[in-house]
Amino acid sequence: MSLLSSTVAAIRPADAAAAAQARDRQARMTKPAGSLGVLEDLSIRLAGLAGECPPPLPEPAAVAVFAGDHGVHAQGVTPWPQEVTGQMVANFLAGGAVVNAFAAQMGASVTVVDVGVAVPPAAGAGLLERNVRRGTRDMTVEPAMTRDEAVAAIEVGITVAQELVAAGHRALLTGDMGIANTTASAALVAAFTGADAAAVTGAGTGVDAETLARKTDVVRRALARHGRLTDPVEVLAAVGGLEHAAIAGFVLGAAAERVPVILDGVIAGSAALAAAALAPDCLDAVVAGHRSTEPGHGVALEHLGLTPLVDLSLRLGEGTGAVLALPIVQASVRALRDVATFDSAGVTEKQ
Amino acid sequence: MSLLSSTVAAIRPADAAAAAQARDRQARMTKPAGSLGVLEDLSIRLAGLAGECPPPLPEPAAVAVFAGDHGVHAQGVTPWPQEVTGQMVANFLAGGAVVNAFAAQMGASVTVVDVGVAVPPAAGAGLLERNVRRGTRDMTVEPAMTRDEAVAAIEVGITVAQELVAAGHRALLTGDMGIANTTASAALVAAFTGADAAAVTGAGTGVDAETLARKTDVVRRALARHGRLTDPVEVLAAVGGLEHAAIAGFVLGAAAERVPVILDGVIAGSAALAAAALAPDCLDAVVAGHRSTEPGHGVALEHLGLTPLVDLSLRLGEGTGAVLALPIVQASVRALRDVATFDSAGVTEKQ
Repeated sequence: MSLLSSTVAAIRPADAAAAAQARDRQARMTKPAGSLGVLEDLSIRLAGLAGECPPPLPEPAAVAVFAGDHGVHAQGVTPWPQEVTGQMVANFLAGGAVVNAFAAQMGASVTVVDVGVAVPPAAGAGLLERNVRRGTRDMTVEPAMTRDEAVAAIEVGITVAQELVAAGHRALLTGDMGIANTTASAALVAAFTGADAAAVTGAGTGVDAETLARKTDVVRRALARHGRLTDPVEVLAAVGGLEHAAIAGFVLGAAAERVPVILDGVIAGSAALAAAALAPDCLDAVVAGHRSTEPGHGVALEHLGLTPLVDLSLRLGEGTGAVLALPIVQASVRALRDVATFDSAGVTEKQ
Repeated sequence: MSLLSSTVAAIRPADAAAAAQARDRQARMTKPAGSLGVLEDLSIRLAGLAGECPPPLPEPAAVAVFAGDHGVHAQGVTPWPQEVTGQMVANFLAGGAVVNAFAAQMGASVTVVDVGVAVPPAAGAGLLERNVRRGTRDMTVEPAMTRDEAVAAIEVGITVAQELVAAGHRALLTGDMGIANTTASAALVAAFTGADAAAVTGAGTGVDAETLARKTDVVRRALARHGRLTDPVEVLAAVGGLEHAAIAGFVLGAAAERVPVILDGVIAGSAALAAAALAPDCLDAVVAGHRSTEPGHGVALEHLGLTPLVDLSLRLGEGTGAVLALPIVQASVRALRDVATFDSAGVTEKQ
């Protein structure tokens, strides 16, 4: 059995008993019932995922930044040259990017995974060299990947999740780097949700109106080129990126390990659509870190039924939005674990 | 000159040069310009407050939980007995409340200030005994405080801010505890913004429809009882709480020290209206930690022109929403301080 098949087979639904225990404890904690809002639901979900109440604290945490290049870059969908993907990989390894600063603040590690960068990055501490292909093909002309390449990239993500959990991490965060990858994300969101290209294609890193119109047309042409696909791996292969496939695998790997995975922005959201299509129960492990300004991200989150924790008009990627959400996820578990009950603290309940 | 007068006099506008330096650096950092959304503006504001770019990291951080009781409790505005205020003070000191769990997760200290609890709390590590009066009077019958009591409570807040900064803290967070204090908050928001009682009175800890109707009527009667007041201290004295006055002072004290102060929910938001009325430039030091479900909170934030960082349907108080926002504030400064520029990292800019 392939690693992908065995991972999908290992994903089980949340434990209803542990979730019920958490719900019951939330009602007895020294606070008005429901007053922690979204954090109560989150702690209950994490108890269900772990199969115990309280669940383990989601720390230490690891961000995996999956980097890949995109053949669709040739269609002029972004003003950024493709070489920036590899340059930013070097910046991550040097600790100079925003995700490094945020992760340092939150006590998370950063691992960079070359799953599809066009130019081989120089080796460095924190780099995992797992390149499947030096960039995808142009999806407006042909499938971005072969099916075998897509599966290989998914399995890179599964393996990275397994390795990070084996190293002791109890929270996984998705990160990404890939010039033109919001174009692939838009195509994936449209393919998985049925939304129109115009409703899911956005300004990405900040393109002008002319480029946005071209980008939307590129997404529309790619979708028309490949027709209606139903197999999630075929969708990834047709219009996805190597980092999208790897992130889909990362989500599946986390879910199989029953460790929470915090999604970053639209790249992760579109990849999670693929993961959910492969194994719907994987969503029990998924936390939406934030909502980016990219329109396709909101469409993806709604389709997945996920509520983002942070909504601050970010549109950077790298894992930055996921890292900002990490302390909130940790706080939700910390409260479930440590807060006194009305009985234990001798606090009178409402009349 | 009184401590209140000298503190107001010490509050100066933000340093435009330091803010401009921060804006310029944000444009050269290795990320698309504007891609950090709200966090870019936040880091620029904090540079202006500190008068240097980058500003100091906002850590260590201290939450001050100001506790007080309310004479208006006699009007049946809440199903919680008044004794819970003192019981929760004991719970904070024992480390058993949600704010303790959140603060432990974020590395912040918790100081509890008895500025107006009805029953003297037992001494304990972390308690500051600064009681001005053992609960306010019933604002539907008479002013909740005398002007002298209100000034004394404001000065408690100023002094606590000064002491925490002198002890090395570089971020101050507001917390509060006081059964019935959302009633006083609603009255303050209505008095300072001109909003109708019905638009600012909410379910607080979760009251039923009948209690909410009574609570709204109580707010309306209190406002009518005291007429139109223009002096901010008179407003606090008429319809505020001792913890509201102290938090207003805490905000003024932080601003005078040029240290950021992160607001929690509607109690802090209504207190900040008083602080801003006393010294409009104090808002340069103020960060809105979150938006609670309490309707008056949104009205207060809009009036203050503040964008909340976290919006997760919390309605607990204690400082919990402010603590959740702390890592976001810290991350915004960390990025401004540590992220490489396009030049320094050798990353190509967009074409």
